[in-house]
Amino acid sequence: MIKSFYPPQRTLMGPGPSDVHPRILAAMARPTIGHLDPLFVNMMDEVKALLQYAFQTKNELTFAVSAPGSAGMECCFVNLLESGDTVIVCQNGVFGGRMKENVERCGATAVMVDDAWGRACDVNKLEDALKAHPEARFVAFVHAETSTGANTDVQAMCEVAHRYDCLTIVDAVTSLGGTPLRVDDWGVDVVYSGTQKCLSCTPGLSPVSFTDAALEIVRNRKTAVQSWFLDLNLLMGYWGSAGTKRTYHHTAPVNALYALHEALVMLQNEGLENAWARHQQHHQALKAGLEALGLDFVVPVGERLPQLNAVRIPKGVDDATVRSLLLQDYQLEIGAGLGVMAGNVWRIGLMGYACRKENVFKCLAALDDVLARLHAPVNHGVAIAAAKAVYG
Amino acid sequence: MIKSFYPPQRTLMGPGPSDVHPRILAAMARPTIGHLDPLFVNMMDEVKALLQYAFQTKNELTFAVSAPGSAGMECCFVNLLESGDTVIVCQNGVFGGRMKENVERCGATAVMVDDAWGRACDVNKLEDALKAHPEARFVAFVHAETSTGANTDVQAMCEVAHRYDCLTIVDAVTSLGGTPLRVDDWGVDVVYSGTQKCLSCTPGLSPVSFTDAALEIVRNRKTAVQSWFLDLNLLMGYWGSAGTKRTYHHTAPVNALYALHEALVMLQNEGLENAWARHQQHHQALKAGLEALGLDFVVPVGERLPQLNAVRIPKGVDDATVRSLLLQDYQLEIGAGLGVMAGNVWRIGLMGYACRKENVFKCLAALDDVLARLHAPVNHGVAIAAAKAVYG
Repeated sequence: MIKSFYPPQRTLMGPGPSDVHPRILAAMARPTIGHLDPLFVNMMDEVKALLQYAFQTKNELTFAVSAPGSAGMECCFVNLLESGDTVIVCQNGVFGGRMKENVERCGATAVMVDDAWGRACDVNKLEDALKAHPEARFVAFVHAETSTGANTDVQAMCEVAHRYDCLTIVDAVTSLGGTPLRVDDWGVDVVYSGTQKCLSCTPGLSPVSFTDAALEIVRNRKTAVQSWFLDLNLLMGYWGSAGTKRTYHHTAPVNALYALHEALVMLQNEGLENAWARHQQHHQALKAGLEALGLDFVVPVGERLPQLNAVRIPKGVDDATVRSLLLQDYQLEIGAGLGVMAGNVWRIGLMGYACRKENVFKCLAALDDVLARLHAPVNHGVAIAAAKAVYG
Repeated sequence: MIKSFYPPQRTLMGPGPSDVHPRILAAMARPTIGHLDPLFVNMMDEVKALLQYAFQTKNELTFAVSAPGSAGMECCFVNLLESGDTVIVCQNGVFGGRMKENVERCGATAVMVDDAWGRACDVNKLEDALKAHPEARFVAFVHAETSTGANTDVQAMCEVAHRYDCLTIVDAVTSLGGTPLRVDDWGVDVVYSGTQKCLSCTPGLSPVSFTDAALEIVRNRKTAVQSWFLDLNLLMGYWGSAGTKRTYHHTAPVNALYALHEALVMLQNEGLENAWARHQQHHQALKAGLEALGLDFVVPVGERLPQLNAVRIPKGVDDATVRSLLLQDYQLEIGAGLGVMAGNVWRIGLMGYACRKENVFKCLAALDDVLARLHAPVNHGVAIAAAKAVYG
């Protein structure tokens, strides 16, 4: 007989999921009501308004796809693309590669612009590709590359894309709520994100937003959207406009939406700019500690995300051993490297509720201890003081 | 400023979501851990084993799609079908129509077998279609039609389909855990379900199961699966086999899976046959009460599901008024009719945790009261006694 599952209380400082705030967990456990209940429909309208705030957009079609970020990504591509379309995909990590997969499964062509892993996407390379491919209709790239911690200049990329009459599709899975993102001001046409990063919510939903220009493309498609579940023409009827009658499409994940609502209320109460500043502040302290320890960042200053700190593993130190000891002795999760960085890099997240002073100290102390026990060639006993100096 | 959302405590006796057991809500609120945490991976293995029990299958590929039932449906179709394939779809309600949508969005052809709404699918009609369409490779139909409450003989349908060398795709969204379903004994090749019906779990996940024969088709496709998110070739690496290393695909909805695990542990503890018997017992009592009240069932005896009771709305009674009063005065949700039955039919669910004696009485008393206040032409004051007589 299988018994009930009681997870331990971890501290989640990997690439996500991040620690979920107790208030959000409590919201998730509230009684389930019907997905067409008038009170639930009203709550969905609030989620839309709160997401508009989080994304800094007035886009009417701003809602949460009822599935994880990967499905949010797919929602954007399958609705916009038709067979024969060309998309320029700027890739500087794992998730750009996933965009390529999505483009090709729509029968479209992905023109890849390869940027160095660990660097922001290069706007000049994008412009070269746009010149060489006047047939391109879309430009897709990742704002905050979760595999490396690189922060791309969304505004500059969108400006160039629009100059060549392309719409932009932006992955903001790791940026939303943690680092500046201004969908309207920056000219982002389509954006998708996740709940389990800087919103401190449980994984499983994907906030998305579409401009009217993007929706025009969806409405004027020659062929049906290949996914029924992700078809915006149907989803629009379900998430609808405030005050209009909802058309049943699928059964919404009611309790997951309670959690997202609560996470967004908390973001609203903290204030978006304050949340961004908090991520930056604790990043500076963690950075000082990690550098004092002797660990090098993968991403150069200026292109670095505060919420995802990718550092190189010291020579001779076994990746998996360190992460196992951190989990076992400290209940602390940090992330492994992904793709070409597997085994060489740790990804230390400072996302949402996990982004707190006590976690900065806990992580530095735990790493210092574990690396000392493994006789790793780092500077022991100095990391905490370096972080403290930043806090002042 | 938008405030935290506190839903009321409803009694959910519609077509789903059904009432979620407090134990399951509590499980959902446990601390989030990483989706690659060894403890979480072990829990995923338990979910697989518990789902194998619930489906009564030994199929190795038995897991929960990280999205609602509609996505589970899509997962089955997009993985099996390629452009040019022919699928015979037997339709006896709304959800067969959704299968057609899925088939066509895969570039395949749906040969529709139209059965009467409110009746089970007719195995003879299926055989006629199989004779007329030797090119068909798949037969798809709904076991428990949520729009009408009709119960189709899955075993007979599968037997005929196999005689004509077709694989079967079965919608078991509303049947799983509430009414007999024996995937292996009945020869079901591919099955999908939902969590928010007779499992008493929150909506948002879709249990699925595939035979090796079905998987061979997926592995030998000529073209890539059109959905990256739902591609079984990738999902197999993530849900994997017990003891093998997991490959990251998407971030699992960690807390939703805690809830499903708990729901399945509860089903295991009750025993599947006991759960089926419980649904049948309370259905008999509810049926006696509804019939005493003077309400007619849509589905004839013998083809009727215990967990979804579709009854005709008495002449002159306004559907929406009744449902609003039930919600407002009794916190009781029952379902409206769907599709051609909108306005004419109520769907009263007795699913999972909601399927209890107290709810049978509550529903009958509330309906009796509301219908009396509206001077509806029904037999007042006799429903409860009729239900009591069944319980003995």
